Formats: sequence, C-alpha cells, structure tokens
Amino acid sequence: MSRIIYGIHPVLEILRSHPEKVEKILSSRDLSGKQNKRSGTSAQKISISFKEIIKLSDRWGIRLFPEKKERLEQVVGQVNHQGIAAYVSEFGYSSLEEIVGHWRNSNEKAFILILDGLQDTQNLGAIVRSAEGAGIHGIIIPKDRAAGVTSTVEKVSAGALEYVSIARVTNISQTIEKLKKAGIWVVGTEGDGGTSLYDADFDADIAVVIGSEGKGIRPLVKKKCDYLISIPMRGKINSLNASVSAAIVIYEIVRQRSL
Amino acid sequence: MSRIIYGIHPVLEILRSHPEKVEKILSSRDLSGKQNKRSGTSAQKISISFKEIIKLSDRWGIRLFPEKKERLEQVVGQVNHQGIAAYVSEFGYSSLEEIVGHWRNSNEKAFILILDGLQDTQNLGAIVRSAEGAGIHGIIIPKDRAAGVTSTVEKVSAGALEYVSIARVTNISQTIEKLKKAGIWVVGTEGDGGTSLYDADFDADIAVVIGSEGKGIRPLVKKKCDYLISIPMRGKINSLNASVSAAIVIYEIVRQRSL
Repeated sequence: MSRIIYGIHPVLEILRSHPEKVEKILSSRDLSGKQNKRSGTSAQKISISFKEIIKLSDRWGIRLFPEKKERLEQVVGQVNHQGIAAYVSEFGYSSLEEIVGHWRNSNEKAFILILDGLQDTQNLGAIVRSAEGAGIHGIIIPKDRAAGVTSTVEKVSAGALEYVSIARVTNISQTIEKLKKAGIWVVGTEGDGGTSLYDADFDADIAVVIGSEGKGIRPLVKKKCDYLISIPMRGKINSLNASVSAAIVIYEIVRQRSL
Repeated sequence: MSRIIYGIHPVLEILRSHPEKVEKILSSRDLSGKQNKRSGTSAQKISISFKEIIKLSDRWGIRLFPEKKERLEQVVGQVNHQGIAAYVSEFGYSSLEEIVGHWRNSNEKAFILILDGLQDTQNLGAIVRSAEGAGIHGIIIPKDRAAGVTSTVEKVSAGALEYVSIARVTNISQTIEKLKKAGIWVVGTEGDGGTSLYDADFDADIAVVIGSEGKGIRPLVKKKCDYLISIPMRGKINSLNASVSAAIVIYEIVRQRSL
C-alpha cells in the first residue's frame, strides 16, 4: 500500500530523507520547473527546488512521469499540488520502544508528546512540524478515534513528518504507565486550572499530553498525569487552537532547557 | 454591505459581543438544535449553545429564518456550517490611532502585532485567536497584497475576531515610524539570525512584526525594526507555520510580563 504526497517541498524533503520509500513521481511541470503557463512570485525558488527533485530522482533511479494537470488532479484531488506528486510507501509508524530508544540514545532529557485523540489532520500536521522544530524524541497517538498520518498531515508538516517518529498505541493510559516506569514525568495540559505553564519546571524527563480539539484530555488519561498545566489566558475567548496550544507548550520546554 | 459568518460558536459569539451588527440568521436546525438526522458526539453542548442563540436573537429582535440545508450551502458554500449562518454588517476596521488609544487607556505596556503581508486567511484567523487570548491591544495589516478579514478569518478565530481591533494601513514602514514616535519598540521576527527570542527583553512597550508565509518580513520593513529576534530551532526542517511562530512569540511576551 502506498500513499500520495504532493507539493514541491514535501516531495523534495522525502527525496532527501527517505528516497528508498519513493515509488514514482508524477509532474505536470515542464523540465525547467515551470507549471503550465502560470508563474508564481517565487517561481525562481520553485524552479531550483524542482531541479533538485529531478537530480535526486535521477540519482536514486526513481521514475518521473510527465502528466497533464487534469490527470494529476484526478490522483491528488483539487489541492495545492504545485504540479507534482509522489507515490510513497505507507508511512512507517514507530513502536513505543523505538521512541524511548531515541531518547536513551540522545543523551538529552526526554521530550515526548502524547496526543490524546486529536481529530483534525491539519492540527496533527502542524503539531508534527512544531515538534520537529523543537527536536522532539517522538509523538504517541492512539490507534482508534484519532487522526492518523495522511497526505494532509504530510503536506501541512512541510516535510517535518519524515524526521519525526510517531507511534500508534492501543491504550494511552497503559502507555503512560510504561513511560512513568521508564522514569519519565507525564504532564497534562488543560484549558484552565492546573499550574501555569510558566510556573512548571520542565528541566526533567518529560512527556506532555495534549487533548483533543474542544474536549481536551479524557478524564481517565488526565488521572494518570503526574501534574496538570494550563496556558494563562488574558482575553475574553479563553481557548486556543489545539496546534497553537501544543506549540506554546513545546516551545516553553525548549526555552527552559536552553537556559 | 454585509458578510456571512457560520458555525454555532462564531454566531453565538457575535450575538454576545455585537448583536447590533447581526442583520439576520439562517438555520437548518430544528428548534431543539438538532441538525437534520445527524448527531455529533457533542450534540448536547451544541444544543445548549443553539438555545442561547435563539434566546439572544429573541432578546435583540433579530429574525431567525429556518432554511433547508441545501439553501444554506448555496449561501455559505461547502463548509462546516453546523447548520447555522448569520448576516453581519461588514467588519469594522479600526484606525491606527484607535489601537494606540486602546494601549494608552489600558495602563499596560503596549502589545501590538504588525502582520507584514500575511497571505493566508486561515493563518490570519489563527493569529487573531492567539492574539485575543494574550490580551493584545491591536493588530495592524497592510491594505494591499495581504489577507483581510473574511468569513474564514471569522470562523478560524472562533469568535475572537469580535474582541480584537484590526487596522489596515497603506504603508507599514510609515506606521512603524509613527509607533516609534509614540515610544513603542518595534521588534521584527525572522527565520534565523537575530537575537534568540528567549534572550530578548519584552518588558517594554512593544510592537512585534511577523512576516508573510515563506518570504518573511520585507527588507525595507525589516530595516525599520529596532531589533530582530528569531525562534531557536532544533530540528532539521527549521521553519514553522506563520501562525505557530506568531503564537510562540506572543506567548513569550505574555510569559515575561507575568513574571
């Protein structure tokens, strides 16, 4: 089984990081990288990236098929494909043990993210991108009733997906128990209540639990957390987008560890 | 001229904050709040919100028209309208002077956001939501070649738009000069280079400039900034979504000011 990723940047990133996974590439661009008669403001930059795609495809023996724009859209749908799509072997999920292994091999304090039932693939993609930028050891998601890795996640992550280990587990509560036994503190985030994010001490081995959009962390999972934190809010609406909340928490951990 | 907003939460928020702007409401729900035969997991919560919409419409004498789902979709398009839409008088932009006035009246340190050519209305909506949660005094955007306030911005902001002042200006560089004369420090954000966000001192009157997706701040605008900051990156991709970058910077300012 394979999935399709599209867009100049995602295709280039997977060719750089995991060329062995790329089965074939379809493109409606001409060989100079131009997309039909349209020319964007960053056409030159895209053209350079496109040439690197051709170069890497050549190097790794990956076939690049010219296709009409209409045919490309039959394959990827009416999305911002930028005239290029790649068939890639199915996303390889990691195991929980592999993520713990990344931490042990890193000589860093543990930095793991647990997403308790995130529903939106846009949010998952955005969180993968933020997590990668923060040098996270891995992300844990539930197998059921949660967004998994799709081509939207790939696209929104802007290539970051290729560098982040994601494990799917059947039971988040049991996973938390295992992480605790490995010496990791488990911190839950909630809308309000709990310790202020800025009063928490993240200078330890940590896994952060982020809840689902709207509903937050499930009560049974919340009970398993060592402590709860919240982002102080100063407005009238008092809620943030799930991927924004995750980014704020992730980067507060980065900040504290860079002191 | 009026615009259309849709979704339970955005419609409820505008009824709470600016009922005088709501011209009429269309709904494909029945009076108990049910949406045709579909029932979501949070149906009960939605039904309570829907009842408040009915109550507020009643109180303010706003007419609520029952409509077929198909007709509603002719009006709002194929979006997640949750069976409800409202016609609202056109978004009222503020002037630069009004935003500066909000600051002067607040007895707080200035906290203003300048978006130098953001293109994506999803990002604008997300930034409005994050900015409102941080209690910002106002957002400044350019009149030309930039995302303005649309129904997508309204929806993504989850109601926050009603509480944030947004000014459109013809010239960002001249606006920066005016802010400087008012005693405000202007801080630019960039992908890399500049002071680390975490080494910057935000305990002053501040306006933060965020650049456009992909291209960042324009060179002439960058030159006008008092200093530049960047978010330290620890991964391989080294770029963040524009709304995520903005949220991280906004909340670092909140953190420093809450010490």
